[in-house]
Amino acid sequence: MERNNSSTQTDFVEVTLEEGTSGFIKVHKVVPPPYKSSFQKFFAKLKEILFPDDPFRQFKGEPLQRKLILGAQYLFPVLQWAPTYNLKLFKSDLISGLTIASLAIPQGISYAKLANVPPILGLYSSFVPPLVYVVLGSSMDLAVGPVSIASLVLGSMISEEVSPTAQPDLFLQVALTSTFFAGIFQSALGILRLGFIIDFLSKAILIGFMGGSAVIVGLQQLKGLLGITHFTSKMALVPVMSSVFNNIDEWSWQTIVMAICFLLFLLGARHVSIKKPELFWVSAGAPLVSVIISTAVSFAIKAQRHGISVIGKLPEGVNPPSADKLLFRGDHLALAIKTGLITGILSLTEGIAVGRTFATMRNYKVDGNKEMMAIGFMNVVGSTTSCYVTTGSFSRSAINHNAGARTAMSNVVMSVTVLVTLLFLMPLFQYTPNVILGAIIISAVIGLIDIPSACLIWKIDKFDFVVMLAAFFGVIFISVQVGLAVSVALSVLRILLQITRPKIVMLGNIPATNIYRNLHHYKEAIRVPGFLILRIKAPINFANITYLNERIYRWVEEEQATIKENVCLQFLILDMSAVSTIDTSGVSLFKDLKNALTMKGVSIVLVNPLAEVIDKLQKSDDANDFIRAEYLFLTVGEAVASLSSTMKSQTPTVQDARWDIPL
Amino acid sequence: MERNNSSTQTDFVEVTLEEGTSGFIKVHKVVPPPYKSSFQKFFAKLKEILFPDDPFRQFKGEPLQRKLILGAQYLFPVLQWAPTYNLKLFKSDLISGLTIASLAIPQGISYAKLANVPPILGLYSSFVPPLVYVVLGSSMDLAVGPVSIASLVLGSMISEEVSPTAQPDLFLQVALTSTFFAGIFQSALGILRLGFIIDFLSKAILIGFMGGSAVIVGLQQLKGLLGITHFTSKMALVPVMSSVFNNIDEWSWQTIVMAICFLLFLLGARHVSIKKPELFWVSAGAPLVSVIISTAVSFAIKAQRHGISVIGKLPEGVNPPSADKLLFRGDHLALAIKTGLITGILSLTEGIAVGRTFATMRNYKVDGNKEMMAIGFMNVVGSTTSCYVTTGSFSRSAINHNAGARTAMSNVVMSVTVLVTLLFLMPLFQYTPNVILGAIIISAVIGLIDIPSACLIWKIDKFDFVVMLAAFFGVIFISVQVGLAVSVALSVLRILLQITRPKIVMLGNIPATNIYRNLHHYKEAIRVPGFLILRIKAPINFANITYLNERIYRWVEEEQATIKENVCLQFLILDMSAVSTIDTSGVSLFKDLKNALTMKGVSIVLVNPLAEVIDKLQKSDDANDFIRAEYLFLTVGEAVASLSSTMKSQTPTVQDARWDIPL
Repeated sequence: MERNNSSTQTDFVEVTLEEGTSGFIKVHKVVPPPYKSSFQKFFAKLKEILFPDDPFRQFKGEPLQRKLILGAQYLFPVLQWAPTYNLKLFKSDLISGLTIASLAIPQGISYAKLANVPPILGLYSSFVPPLVYVVLGSSMDLAVGPVSIASLVLGSMISEEVSPTAQPDLFLQVALTSTFFAGIFQSALGILRLGFIIDFLSKAILIGFMGGSAVIVGLQQLKGLLGITHFTSKMALVPVMSSVFNNIDEWSWQTIVMAICFLLFLLGARHVSIKKPELFWVSAGAPLVSVIISTAVSFAIKAQRHGISVIGKLPEGVNPPSADKLLFRGDHLALAIKTGLITGILSLTEGIAVGRTFATMRNYKVDGNKEMMAIGFMNVVGSTTSCYVTTGSFSRSAINHNAGARTAMSNVVMSVTVLVTLLFLMPLFQYTPNVILGAIIISAVIGLIDIPSACLIWKIDKFDFVVMLAAFFGVIFISVQVGLAVSVALSVLRILLQITRPKIVMLGNIPATNIYRNLHHYKEAIRVPGFLILRIKAPINFANITYLNERIYRWVEEEQATIKENVCLQFLILDMSAVSTIDTSGVSLFKDLKNALTMKGVSIVLVNPLAEVIDKLQKSDDANDFIRAEYLFLTVGEAVASLSSTMKSQTPTVQDARWDIPL
Repeated sequence: MERNNSSTQTDFVEVTLEEGTSGFIKVHKVVPPPYKSSFQKFFAKLKEILFPDDPFRQFKGEPLQRKLILGAQYLFPVLQWAPTYNLKLFKSDLISGLTIASLAIPQGISYAKLANVPPILGLYSSFVPPLVYVVLGSSMDLAVGPVSIASLVLGSMISEEVSPTAQPDLFLQVALTSTFFAGIFQSALGILRLGFIIDFLSKAILIGFMGGSAVIVGLQQLKGLLGITHFTSKMALVPVMSSVFNNIDEWSWQTIVMAICFLLFLLGARHVSIKKPELFWVSAGAPLVSVIISTAVSFAIKAQRHGISVIGKLPEGVNPPSADKLLFRGDHLALAIKTGLITGILSLTEGIAVGRTFATMRNYKVDGNKEMMAIGFMNVVGSTTSCYVTTGSFSRSAINHNAGARTAMSNVVMSVTVLVTLLFLMPLFQYTPNVILGAIIISAVIGLIDIPSACLIWKIDKFDFVVMLAAFFGVIFISVQVGLAVSVALSVLRILLQITRPKIVMLGNIPATNIYRNLHHYKEAIRVPGFLILRIKAPINFANITYLNERIYRWVEEEQATIKENVCLQFLILDMSAVSTIDTSGVSLFKDLKNALTMKGVSIVLVNPLAEVIDKLQKSDDANDFIRAEYLFLTVGEAVASLSSTMKSQTPTVQDARWDIPL
């Protein structure tokens, strides 16, 4: 024990020890924080909010030429891997690119139908956006193209105002405009470094939302699977189910038989790949195989004559330009902006989550803000080349990863394959039955229903489970927007409630140590008579000062009502270690508490307040009532030891708790 | 040092000490928290949210009869003080009651004009509501009646849809209906114990809001003070000022002379009372004196002939019933509900803040939820007896307190005085000039502009100052609702930002102790090589896991880039003392961090996690990877000491920091 090791920050306080002799206890002073100007503090805070990853640190101290190269690599991640690209990498990328292309083509056509846009847009959207992403994106595993959730949301939101059957051209225009705004919004989030906004779609929300979307999308496919021609364009459970059962006369048994066969095939293939991940190509190839077989069957038996509807003629050739189709005025501009905003956020969330998942697996980092810019720019370019909203697809990225993709080059391979299809193979799809598209969608979205995760959420956190249910039922019974809004509102409400009712724990001494811990958790911890030791675990601000004031006052009153061992309560020790920040209302809490407790003969002692708290208390308080050295300590142990010496009455029975602590 | 004091919760870890000899360090185990079922946890949380004051604790263990008496006293606080009421108390209350009545009568008439309702409503509202409050309210100092802010907001919100001059009857109906809904809303908040909602109007918001309202109200009085007849009914700065200067031809010099005289008199009286608080009766009596003198002058010089407008004939008699005037259908119901909601919250905030302020001064407690029920019920009754929104007035309560009020009986005295006025003195007001009402309002609202508090806010917290400015300019330039909405939104945004970017501090050892403190605050603290010690100061949840993950990862990378003293980073110690709660996303942070850091050869060590955190980590993690005893410690000091023994290389230079700590 180095009791004689003195420094400018250490004080020795004379105390009366148990035997009545005097002694010294070393007490460490709480020093005021180093001075920082308001501007410095503001700048530091802003930097932490907008640049938590400090993207410029790699540039520090480098020569200019190197800085330029690093800058170019920062803007165009392709420059990081392209110079060292070689044939071996390409072989891997070729295989994975062809694999995801075989999935992307049938899924593209299916998802475009889900979005109520012409099926060919699904292929267009699998051609241009991947090429943009290759240049700008930093993920090596992402397979880019249309995805089910964004397609569903786009289709359902626009069809609330514009009918996809009565006004198909207007619908397409609004869809492309929404894609444009989604891209602008995504890039803006990235450029303004506000990426944390998508964090508010928590995992619980996404699981509930995706599950609900999968259910709705699956039920909507009953239109194709049952061969119904008159069907609602609404996305809620009730209208969809009434469409199904009010049109029983339209059910076509030939369609149903075909649907059941291919659904069983696709779900079987999916099951095989889940059981044996090395057989990933089974589920990857199954949709294309289904399309080929069903097209052949449909051509052979002249399916249309048996009431099986087919896709029909699709235009050949590459994406036509579509910049002239964007609507920047008119009645539907607001709709396009709103749709763009929501599909933009959703597709960002999916793309970034997918990118991060596989980056973690392969131990590289994906920069969220850069990905936002990449995905955003991809959608802006897409909207001018007849593509609708695209992002990184979870299912295709997983297959891409399993198939051994090494770089984003696999997207180029996929894109070229789609190009070949667009140029030469389009007539083949003429006889593809629509029912197969429904089956492909169902086998794709069924993976979005994540029961194990839902169970885990129930086990860990009941409130998160409620949030998840809100998203799920909101999507199923009302709409996608309401489901999202309600669940995000609940999550934010929870955060506010946590601030409004912050945790306060009563600390006790763990015998023969100077450790103070929660009395309700550590049963061996014991109270120190004459002291009430509370640790406040939240910022102190306008939302909780009333609560803190009343709650602490109530504790003091209860303490005083049950006087223990003849020692009345003399000190309220507030352990401030966990109070991260304080505002002007928080400062007034201390004044109010002090006023109220002084009348009760209780002094307030602060332990280990943070720099910001010391700073603000000092500023508010000319008399320095709170920041006075005698009521300010670095640890609870030192506070108790030092203040015990000033106590009015002796407490012989609990001496070991107070005095045998190793100081 | 009691190294041999063993217990079930203590372990001894063999370590290699500096001289190469072996020794034992006492390490305290982190115990799992006592078991609680989900229902118990939910119930405890709910109790803390809704019943933080535990209102039933006084009933515990009492006999039934006592319980009934306590219950009646809880519902009707008048029963607490009425039985011991005596003549001595009454003398004090009589004086203070008469004092506030002399202020309430002219202010009542003035504020009713501010709310665009007939002036007589201001007197009606000073008669019935105080009588209701006496029975239900728990404050002894509150002077109840119409107040400036609520009058202003009520008048300006309703006049956005209904013209007070063209449709005075409809306006009155909507105003009474709004009062009804304000009362219902206030009682509901009290009964549902959701009083914390008003906490979101922080002090900064109120100062900005009241300052802005005072400016707008003051400028609006230019109508009366200048004698302008054509004036906007809008409440924003621009239309009010253009009304003033576009109607210069309507300015009446006789009115202006009278205005200046009485304004100087009132402000002078106010100044005297501020300088010498014992002369409180100077400012208390000045409005009534002004009314009497101005009425006499006006009668003597036949003011109307000189272009000075007067109040005119007011009806005699007590409040007529008005339940039949409440509108529960029709176009204006939504307006009435919205107005009721906002005036309800504002008047609650004022009433409760005033009640608490004076309760603290006299060392009794005001129960927020009970006050809400009292004020709410008062407004519901008021709406059926021709009263508009009332609450506790700050200025009159202060005078009540200074005049020596002892109980709520002073409100009864005031009420009776107002009754006498209503029955017998109404004809006297016939010649009272309107200009005097404007002067009274200005002298009342000028006190709402609180420059010193604004300066203090600037000094303490810049962001609060911005919030205050938002409220101030929002009210002045747009509207009361926008000002409130923007400032509340900013405050909530700040809380969310604090959660999104939580504070993480890097801890260092204070030499020769086992205390670990912020390296940037305590300059004498030193790093422990091989360890990165971080303390996270916020709940870990969906909104911040991305940030925490990237930020911590960056720190680890930076650490590894600057290897110190040949010791590479081996342990990341996360001090969890300040992490109050965690959700399912928070749990996943630990998994992700572990995956990423294991590849870098860094182990994660948790220190002092809270019961809830231990609980959730255990549930999510079947292998108990995080809650394994070897990586879980009760204090940072013990973690460092214990883990150092397992470190691969020796670190001779910083031994004192690691080994001389008193264990």
